[in-house]
Amino acid sequence: MPEATRLVAAAALRAWVTGVFECAGVPTEDAHVAAGVLVAANLRGIDSHGVLHLPMKVQRLLSGRANPRPQFRLAQESATALCLDADNGLGMVAGDRAMRLAMERARQYGAAAVCVRRSNHFGITGYYVQLAAAANQIGLCCSNASKSMAPWGSITPYLSTNPLAFAAPGGIPGGVVLDMATSQVAWGKIELAARAGRKIPLTWATDPAGRPTDDPHVGMAGLMAPLGGYKGFGLALMVDILSGVLSGAAFGGHVGNFYAEPDRPEDVGHFFVAVDVRRLMPLEQFLARMDQIVAEIHACQPADGVERIFVPGELEAEMATQREREGIPLPADVYHELQRLGEAVGYPLVIT
Amino acid sequence: MPEATRLVAAAALRAWVTGVFECAGVPTEDAHVAAGVLVAANLRGIDSHGVLHLPMKVQRLLSGRANPRPQFRLAQESATALCLDADNGLGMVAGDRAMRLAMERARQYGAAAVCVRRSNHFGITGYYVQLAAAANQIGLCCSNASKSMAPWGSITPYLSTNPLAFAAPGGIPGGVVLDMATSQVAWGKIELAARAGRKIPLTWATDPAGRPTDDPHVGMAGLMAPLGGYKGFGLALMVDILSGVLSGAAFGGHVGNFYAEPDRPEDVGHFFVAVDVRRLMPLEQFLARMDQIVAEIHACQPADGVERIFVPGELEAEMATQREREGIPLPADVYHELQRLGEAVGYPLVIT
Repeated sequence: MPEATRLVAAAALRAWVTGVFECAGVPTEDAHVAAGVLVAANLRGIDSHGVLHLPMKVQRLLSGRANPRPQFRLAQESATALCLDADNGLGMVAGDRAMRLAMERARQYGAAAVCVRRSNHFGITGYYVQLAAAANQIGLCCSNASKSMAPWGSITPYLSTNPLAFAAPGGIPGGVVLDMATSQVAWGKIELAARAGRKIPLTWATDPAGRPTDDPHVGMAGLMAPLGGYKGFGLALMVDILSGVLSGAAFGGHVGNFYAEPDRPEDVGHFFVAVDVRRLMPLEQFLARMDQIVAEIHACQPADGVERIFVPGELEAEMATQREREGIPLPADVYHELQRLGEAVGYPLVIT
Repeated sequence: MPEATRLVAAAALRAWVTGVFECAGVPTEDAHVAAGVLVAANLRGIDSHGVLHLPMKVQRLLSGRANPRPQFRLAQESATALCLDADNGLGMVAGDRAMRLAMERARQYGAAAVCVRRSNHFGITGYYVQLAAAANQIGLCCSNASKSMAPWGSITPYLSTNPLAFAAPGGIPGGVVLDMATSQVAWGKIELAARAGRKIPLTWATDPAGRPTDDPHVGMAGLMAPLGGYKGFGLALMVDILSGVLSGAAFGGHVGNFYAEPDRPEDVGHFFVAVDVRRLMPLEQFLARMDQIVAEIHACQPADGVERIFVPGELEAEMATQREREGIPLPADVYHELQRLGEAVGYPLVIT
């Protein structure tokens, strides 16, 4: 760990982030939810989607570009297909509300889908499906975002690295959790490399003309590479159709960029599905089957040089346990940015 | 086209395949459905999943390893989460039934999920989601199959190349249709290369010890490479949890192999989701938005050497139009195999 990195207790960080959101006009309950999603990202080691985003979120709230006190309303409602209009509120609050709504309907009917329009970037996609797994449901979730990836064969940025996530209870503590961008890597990983002054692998991104680059700054100004080529493009388009086209949110190149375009709403769209396991199989039987598939994967023979086989979400769950115990490491530049933010909103960061 | 390749009219081929299934004891209506799925694969250019599979399917039916006259029954039923027990019947018939069931419930409630247990290989995954798109619904579908891919970091084959598919109406004729294996390429592509005596790219598969190979025979005896590494493994596991673990079918390494293990049921599982577009947005508005996103993708600037930008399913739809008009090309070895099959079941292939 670089010398200047600080370890901050998760609970203290969560309380401070909650307070900062409140200073930006967000009601206490919503502030608590939003802080929980951001800090959960740091706990799971996905620092690119954690408190690093707080200054930008607060800036958008204070400038009026995002709505701290949205009036959520159901724009469409049938028994198991619903559309939530998020009124330009925090994406984390809208996402939490929408996933819980899908889970409620799944409990009632078996399975349900909820889409969200007029939202904002909602942090890690995996957070929402974990809510489902914790309630012994299966969760699926995806979201669009601002353009950074070209359709396969093209060099025009049009789609985001549109993430998708899946979780099922059992197998490992917290359940199996897949949370992935449909690009080779998440945009945030390139952003982190740029902050750390590291080069990136040539497969991650290209310059604006489509030529591979190892410079994260060039990549950020260029194009993200879709996962495995045309399949990643296909998955990203699927996510945008579900999250953007179907919800009534912006889609494709029309989604606002939260960094580059502070002056207009993002109009992000999300999509959630919940399936209640107990409607399909006794829960104990399902959990035993999950334990079996995970145990059998763990027992597969490692390739040369590999120590352990992990299932999706397992490394992140272990990281979360460790960081709950030891604290969340915040690099000096992030810590100082948060300090400045605390001073600006009148809620100093006094965590040491 | 190699000299010995024959062009066969789709309608004539479909009629003959239907008759062959009937000779194997399948009721006429089911035979028609199964033939439709196989020939649809050839029409769309996915020859690896078309009539090439017919001899193996018929052999399994005639030997009693698959059930020509299954009694489908709902093993679990709530309003929008159902489980169909396919009674070891043809996967194509079970898949068609399950997707239509999901669509019916989606029409009624908004969205619905159906899983299937005790099924068999069901051909192209894209077929089923196209049914949804044709009815102005959004379709999602996935299936497990027999082991050919190792968990990430391992060299033990445990998961299949578990395909997933998505379709939405609008944009192009038939709708946008994503149909992909969660491996770098579908197993069938390596099978086709082996039949054609072609080498394969080093990224497609490895030998049993995990070393890259360009020999399709070595690859078929070895391991399929997951799409983009750990993400493909994660997607394949997600598919197996939805299709196998949740349905009560076999999962992981326990799914029967239709080639190598003719003596036991495959016990394949599938999973289907349907979302009725009209419950979320006026249909005309959705179709206009789909037309817009596809038109904007088509208008993106092509990279050097690229002529056109395609959306998922577009090449396949154009291929289907062409093959409906000109006929389906059957290589000599496939044609002769079908001829021998026709003689064996007493329903000669007289298409010329």
